[in-house]
Amino acid sequence: MTQTIDKDLIIFANRLANESRKILRNHFRKKIKIRYKSDQSPVTEADTKVEKKLRMLIQRKYPKHGIIGEEFENIQINAEYLWCLDPLDGTAAFITGKPLFGTLIGLLREKIPIFGIIEHPILGERWSGGINNPAKLNGKNTKVRKCKNISNAMLYATSPEMFEGKNKKSFQRLSTMAKKTQYGADCYAYGLLASGHIDLIAEAKMKPCDFLALVPVVRASGGIISDWDGKPLNINSGGCVLASGNSKIHNQALKIINGK
Amino acid sequence: MTQTIDKDLIIFANRLANESRKILRNHFRKKIKIRYKSDQSPVTEADTKVEKKLRMLIQRKYPKHGIIGEEFENIQINAEYLWCLDPLDGTAAFITGKPLFGTLIGLLREKIPIFGIIEHPILGERWSGGINNPAKLNGKNTKVRKCKNISNAMLYATSPEMFEGKNKKSFQRLSTMAKKTQYGADCYAYGLLASGHIDLIAEAKMKPCDFLALVPVVRASGGIISDWDGKPLNINSGGCVLASGNSKIHNQALKIINGK
Repeated sequence: MTQTIDKDLIIFANRLANESRKILRNHFRKKIKIRYKSDQSPVTEADTKVEKKLRMLIQRKYPKHGIIGEEFENIQINAEYLWCLDPLDGTAAFITGKPLFGTLIGLLREKIPIFGIIEHPILGERWSGGINNPAKLNGKNTKVRKCKNISNAMLYATSPEMFEGKNKKSFQRLSTMAKKTQYGADCYAYGLLASGHIDLIAEAKMKPCDFLALVPVVRASGGIISDWDGKPLNINSGGCVLASGNSKIHNQALKIINGK
Repeated sequence: MTQTIDKDLIIFANRLANESRKILRNHFRKKIKIRYKSDQSPVTEADTKVEKKLRMLIQRKYPKHGIIGEEFENIQINAEYLWCLDPLDGTAAFITGKPLFGTLIGLLREKIPIFGIIEHPILGERWSGGINNPAKLNGKNTKVRKCKNISNAMLYATSPEMFEGKNKKSFQRLSTMAKKTQYGADCYAYGLLASGHIDLIAEAKMKPCDFLALVPVVRASGGIISDWDGKPLNINSGGCVLASGNSKIHNQALKIINGK
């Protein structure tokens, strides 16, 4: 795609990440009210506080843009520009004092993810990237590494509990073929992939706000990201995500996942 | 037990942790040679470099003390004082750029763990504690939290792959009863427990150097740590570890693990 992203949008996205960093740092390891959704996933005051703040800033600066977020209803979903917010990816990590959680800020244009930020407030690490914008970690260019064969691949997933039924068997096949599988990094894993420290991520039960910000960052770092059928991820995708450092192991992983 | 620990030993243990921090920081996210042991667990130059350095420092300062470590042979295992070193707990995290790995430094007297350090070089967090020495995080007193029932407990384990056969069923029962299970924190989880952020840790396939440094820290924070039969951990323990914020949920967890 030959398009550029308005610099103001990138500056603004980083401003959103700054705001989130401030709020999450203030609430980390403090006593905090936790509520559990129907799927038993936790939500805290910090989640809702960040999302409210980011929504307010977007609506004030770009009233014509749309917003989808984890905790509140969608706004102008058919707008040219659409922001996808996950204020606190890894709430379970957050409420147990483990600093790998982050804020995901994605920007779509005409439904296509064009820019993303993976912000880690406690670790002070921010990955970003998009169309015609190289992937960066804290402002410094970063890229995937080469991994020629899946038998040497380091694989990450947030939790083995993401996988049920057919997906569980698919993931187990992939995990068996990979060099080593590790759990529990949430969105931090996508940063590790974008910086060439790991080779593969497979996840399931993801919602659009969990992955739309990741897509431009992974692509800008030279990586591949798709659903488990190899199709591009968009706001209507199912919850299965596969991210890889290169197309060779991505294709190998897709075959293993689909039992081919 | 009414005994005190010589202050010089505590100062020296912290010096060992400082040395380890320096070396591991220098090697983090750098190109590094990795070798795989027969059990497929990885070892790096950083592991061996840290352990060599710490052994050298101990032997120079306390030539009569014994040493057991992950990577080299045991020395004077029947000495009055015995140091237990895990230079790099969480090597899989280390080689994939995830900063939760640590160095474990334990001190035993007459085979009883009396002092321990859980050092996290990248996060700059160090938990310590022992007999008559309160648990501290970066020098500040820290303690476990109350959790009255296992149904509210946050449970951690390094990986679901630690559990096989009978242990797998035991862990699954425990995980089902707990509020939420998270993976992938390695020794960082014991720090989180000691600071009252989580309530339970269950692990298996652990070696003495993986847990002997944790015992004094968990106890000094007000927590309980034992094997899966409820027995105190020592250099001859099997590989199953259970750590809890208090005796009530520890006893509940032991019953669940043992199917009672």
